[in-house]
Amino acid sequence: MSLPLSGVTVVDFTRILSGPFATMILADLGAAVIKIERPGAGDGARTLPPLKDGKSAYFAAVNRGKRSMALDFDKADDRAVLDRILSRADVLVENFRPGVMDRHGLGWDLLHARHPALIYASVTGFGQTGPDARRAAYDVIVQARSGLMNRTGTPDAPRRAGSSFGDLSGGMFLAQGILAALYDRGRTGVGRRVDVGMLDAQLALMEQAVPQQATGATPPPHPSRHPSIAPCEAVSASDGPFVLTAGTEAQFERLCLVLDLPIAQDPRFADNAARLANARLLKRLIEAVTLEHPRSHWLSRMTAAGVPCAPIQSMDQVMKDPQIAARNMIVDVLDRYGRASFKAAGNPIKMSGMEDPPARAPAPELDGNRADILRWLEKD
Amino acid sequence: MSLPLSGVTVVDFTRILSGPFATMILADLGAAVIKIERPGAGDGARTLPPLKDGKSAYFAAVNRGKRSMALDFDKADDRAVLDRILSRADVLVENFRPGVMDRHGLGWDLLHARHPALIYASVTGFGQTGPDARRAAYDVIVQARSGLMNRTGTPDAPRRAGSSFGDLSGGMFLAQGILAALYDRGRTGVGRRVDVGMLDAQLALMEQAVPQQATGATPPPHPSRHPSIAPCEAVSASDGPFVLTAGTEAQFERLCLVLDLPIAQDPRFADNAARLANARLLKRLIEAVTLEHPRSHWLSRMTAAGVPCAPIQSMDQVMKDPQIAARNMIVDVLDRYGRASFKAAGNPIKMSGMEDPPARAPAPELDGNRADILRWLEKD
Repeated sequence: MSLPLSGVTVVDFTRILSGPFATMILADLGAAVIKIERPGAGDGARTLPPLKDGKSAYFAAVNRGKRSMALDFDKADDRAVLDRILSRADVLVENFRPGVMDRHGLGWDLLHARHPALIYASVTGFGQTGPDARRAAYDVIVQARSGLMNRTGTPDAPRRAGSSFGDLSGGMFLAQGILAALYDRGRTGVGRRVDVGMLDAQLALMEQAVPQQATGATPPPHPSRHPSIAPCEAVSASDGPFVLTAGTEAQFERLCLVLDLPIAQDPRFADNAARLANARLLKRLIEAVTLEHPRSHWLSRMTAAGVPCAPIQSMDQVMKDPQIAARNMIVDVLDRYGRASFKAAGNPIKMSGMEDPPARAPAPELDGNRADILRWLEKD
Repeated sequence: MSLPLSGVTVVDFTRILSGPFATMILADLGAAVIKIERPGAGDGARTLPPLKDGKSAYFAAVNRGKRSMALDFDKADDRAVLDRILSRADVLVENFRPGVMDRHGLGWDLLHARHPALIYASVTGFGQTGPDARRAAYDVIVQARSGLMNRTGTPDAPRRAGSSFGDLSGGMFLAQGILAALYDRGRTGVGRRVDVGMLDAQLALMEQAVPQQATGATPPPHPSRHPSIAPCEAVSASDGPFVLTAGTEAQFERLCLVLDLPIAQDPRFADNAARLANARLLKRLIEAVTLEHPRSHWLSRMTAAGVPCAPIQSMDQVMKDPQIAARNMIVDVLDRYGRASFKAAGNPIKMSGMEDPPARAPAPELDGNRADILRWLEKD
């Protein structure tokens, strides 16, 4: 069996993170991704820290396995090459602000008329429509505006969630839209326009906050505590915090047994709703016991008893986690000489008949695949 | 044009969030989702807060537009109905712990032999393989173990990111795997097994942390500050914090102009790498000015000058945000009587030819579509 997206060609005009993350997902699934970059500097992420030997490890991770060609949209020769690439492509992906592609004669209307089977996908800060469509957005803008920072910290001390979910969620929903359009095109032969806004995508991940808001209940600030399940939070052992949760009655009873806490029948903790209403008291009761012993003591006892719990790992611990290793979730990204130069997260989509190699093809040098791409254009 | 997944039937054995979020995405794209629930209680999310009129707003949001049938796998009559549903389905989705479906004679090997075109997709805490495959996981477990809590807070005060990214990322990568398998099946006629672990999916979203770790640089704790871009964080105005970022030289020069800060030529802030190395000093210099005026003053001036910035919105502000309204990103979820009872985030995937209605079909009552589904099974 071949890769599920084998034979699919993606023309990729995206830069930095949201769009490149979407095309990384498509490349990992087997699509051939041609990164079109502006001559000279290319994708701005090429210089983003962290660097290793002067190269961006960040860029390498997100652009692994893609190819690159530098083209100036406004030069006739380059434009002719681009038009030939477009006539062979299945999907176009871009993350310019609305209007930029149109100004270069690369808008949806024009390209759809010329290449009716081409799927045309855009991810921008705010989508293609609405009063703020033309404003630039970055991850932190979206995290702030969507309510995520307010809910990760407190209203007085808002906090950015520790990864770029604004960009990444935009990229993931874009990938989903592209994949659905590819499936659909297999039946209709016609490409669709896919339009994703990062703010919309981030909001779609506020799975608890939006419905809660509409019930009229005002969510109190509760850093590190789940808003709908109790207990479900970080608690302190004698040597530091770890997390535990007990969302079902059986789990809560087992937790009480492990802690030797006679509260399983206490009406204040009789069900999840009661535990949620008394979550602060419940945490103090749990910590009164957990503070007596170190984390390792509790993690092994709770695991044995079937109470979900985990260490709060730092990234160096994550990189050595045996489960993560067993799933091939830390992969090498090769450099142009075939050396394992960078590490990146692997592909979390495991699929029958789809190889999951421990090393991935390099991110391209700027314009590094020009000859190769030109040769491909000559074939019929 | 019809919905991109029209005609696709999904048999959905999932509960709580990770799996139901994946099938919600498929339903929003037009798939017919049949939720198979255990008789009596059904999906545990049916009782999860927030509640409205005794119904879970949480459940309503994530299960909108699906249908439900209660079936006991171990009862012969029910099992016969299930087998007929499976023979008509395109996709099976489940989020039991590994081994549970096999014990009920519903494992991949058996079903693939019987229904070779069926796509079989599982999302579990740790995936189908590895030493911890059979352990239960919940969002907070995955946030802790993946390094996310460590990076959202500090090592001493870890913090849960303010939404259930552990579940949601598992659901999103599962949806992507299913969509890729659907595209592929259109060419091969053969279904694939898709296996996603929530821990893997969460790690795949540590887009900066994993490559950084591999460069040997130890990331310092930096709540609310982007680890690769400066400035990119929350800063204080006279009446509270807002966020700004200036990732390009042009944006940084504009920021210096708006603030009347003569540091654009200062070598300590000459480029992003220098600004990152001096991020604390830079923030103090910025706040020395921003503390003089309220947020509204700076947001309007920076917006006019093209410096990306945003208010840090609370959820009640988010619900009234005009851009979010213009994008139809807060939708009504109807109840069984057709009344707009709940609010949920809309579909962030906007697509040509795909309707984006402001009200969505209800989440099903437990076993609420039995007659309907039985009638569908009679048709040929």
